[in-house]
Amino acid sequence: MTIDDILAARARLEGHARLTPLLNAPLLDAELGRRVFLKAECLQKTGSFKYRGARSAISALDDATRNRGVIAFSSGNHAQGVALAAKEMGTSAVIVMPSDAPDAKIENTKAYGAEVVLYDRATDDRDAIGASLAEARGLTLIKPFDNETVIAGQGTIGLEIADQAKPLGLEKASVLVCCGGGGLTSGIALALADRAPDFRVQTVEPQGFDDVARSLETGQIQRNDAQTGSICDAILTPAPGDLTFPIMKAHCGPGLVVSDADAQRAMAIAFAHFKVVLEPGGAVALAAALFHATGTQDIIAIASGGNVDWPVFRDAFESSGTV
Amino acid sequence: MTIDDILAARARLEGHARLTPLLNAPLLDAELGRRVFLKAECLQKTGSFKYRGARSAISALDDATRNRGVIAFSSGNHAQGVALAAKEMGTSAVIVMPSDAPDAKIENTKAYGAEVVLYDRATDDRDAIGASLAEARGLTLIKPFDNETVIAGQGTIGLEIADQAKPLGLEKASVLVCCGGGGLTSGIALALADRAPDFRVQTVEPQGFDDVARSLETGQIQRNDAQTGSICDAILTPAPGDLTFPIMKAHCGPGLVVSDADAQRAMAIAFAHFKVVLEPGGAVALAAALFHATGTQDIIAIASGGNVDWPVFRDAFESSGTV
Repeated sequence: MTIDDILAARARLEGHARLTPLLNAPLLDAELGRRVFLKAECLQKTGSFKYRGARSAISALDDATRNRGVIAFSSGNHAQGVALAAKEMGTSAVIVMPSDAPDAKIENTKAYGAEVVLYDRATDDRDAIGASLAEARGLTLIKPFDNETVIAGQGTIGLEIADQAKPLGLEKASVLVCCGGGGLTSGIALALADRAPDFRVQTVEPQGFDDVARSLETGQIQRNDAQTGSICDAILTPAPGDLTFPIMKAHCGPGLVVSDADAQRAMAIAFAHFKVVLEPGGAVALAAALFHATGTQDIIAIASGGNVDWPVFRDAFESSGTV
Repeated sequence: MTIDDILAARARLEGHARLTPLLNAPLLDAELGRRVFLKAECLQKTGSFKYRGARSAISALDDATRNRGVIAFSSGNHAQGVALAAKEMGTSAVIVMPSDAPDAKIENTKAYGAEVVLYDRATDDRDAIGASLAEARGLTLIKPFDNETVIAGQGTIGLEIADQAKPLGLEKASVLVCCGGGGLTSGIALALADRAPDFRVQTVEPQGFDDVARSLETGQIQRNDAQTGSICDAILTPAPGDLTFPIMKAHCGPGLVVSDADAQRAMAIAFAHFKVVLEPGGAVALAAALFHATGTQDIIAIASGGNVDWPVFRDAFESSGTV
């Protein structure tokens, strides 16, 4: 993959994906002694960056393939991105979702017009369900991260950051990315390596799901033992991808890890200072910027999504005592 | 006042005020049968549009006047806008605030470096306090709305809307504006009358504080009886201004009125569909778009601010039962 793949994705997304703002908060910056910019992808269509990769991938299919329909596995954000992108392009989408995904994500995926097939994480074989549907109907699988056109779509965020950074006087910065399987991180890292090579990209993961941090440290793909047990549902993936890991290994590190409580406090600070709604998994990069950064270097934190049910949002405030 | 005043304000704000996004939510649009776009000024510096007018006014002063400092009366959003703009331009600000203003607004105004003087709405004479301070120190009063350079600053939002509307295919639209004294409304109306004359601007006010709606209806400035009694603290003004009313009379109407409960439900929908934080007074335009609009015409609702304390935000959800 090269920067040309990302530029091609940008052309396909033109007029469809939103240019999301890069926000800072002067009072917070004064408190922290450094500037923290939030790339507010929670304001992207469908409430997360996933729309970019989904639209990039589906728009790259040939017409006949696209018209047979697509299928995806997702706990919610990729689901909504694929559902909306498919609908916009006049094709159908089947989304295989775990039955414990947040209610709003399941409901919205259906509302975007997708056929939702629920499975039980503990007892069902997700891949078998998906493979059987895909074969029966000739559907194309849109993987959530280990797919070049998906990575290229997420990389358009990196192009935007490079453009937005200049007028803000951002010449060197740490770019912190909420990381599941690494599609967002590797796309941004590829784009910035070309457009803003002085920016350093670091992954941020929840405690107990630090497969990427350990993989970067050891140089080999490492897996998580657990599949559940964090509120950061959007980024609980078992291991980095075969395509994403080499890119991250070349361009990113070291990986950072935050607690669920850190993510909750970051959600409260995003509310108070940035006036945006973040889901737990979309707040881990901001959490790392707020609670685990040292020095005075500017930070750009990717706020990857805002699809959170109200009880989870309320609990983030009440249990963190931040606001 | 003419469009040239607004263009001059835009030049003074260039590189300082943020271009805020114009957001819609496909699922909400499908539910409503019309598109509703949110001009997200809650993402403006200081969390409300007021920064634009404040910076426009202070930057239009001659150096000697500006250097003596400025003073403002405000329950919070104008306060923060004036405080930050003054700080950025290297001068001092005194803000006279009611002691029952939201905590976050008082604290933030201080944090932006202003000297805050609190008064009791029931017993103190705000104007006397301000006049005495202004005279003693040679401060210039930055009025919250009845000031040409303030109106021109708010009008830059109208220029942005006209630019942003074209690629979205927005040719005719109702533009709903959260309205207190009319600075925001009159600025936007002036800009759109020049740049997008097919857009119709309407004011939105809270029940019991519908002075502008009644003034537009009767053609004469009408006053509110009450000064408190709505959660929409940002827009509880006694009457439209001598400068703003003739502009609104020429370009706007009829005025719309929403209940506090409508504003709370709109805050919940902004959370769920737009991923932005709105304060009650910043949500009334969206409330009118959601609950009081008829027909299928596109609507642009100005989301004027997001400076809300957590208990008020929580209560909007729990009492509206929306989410």
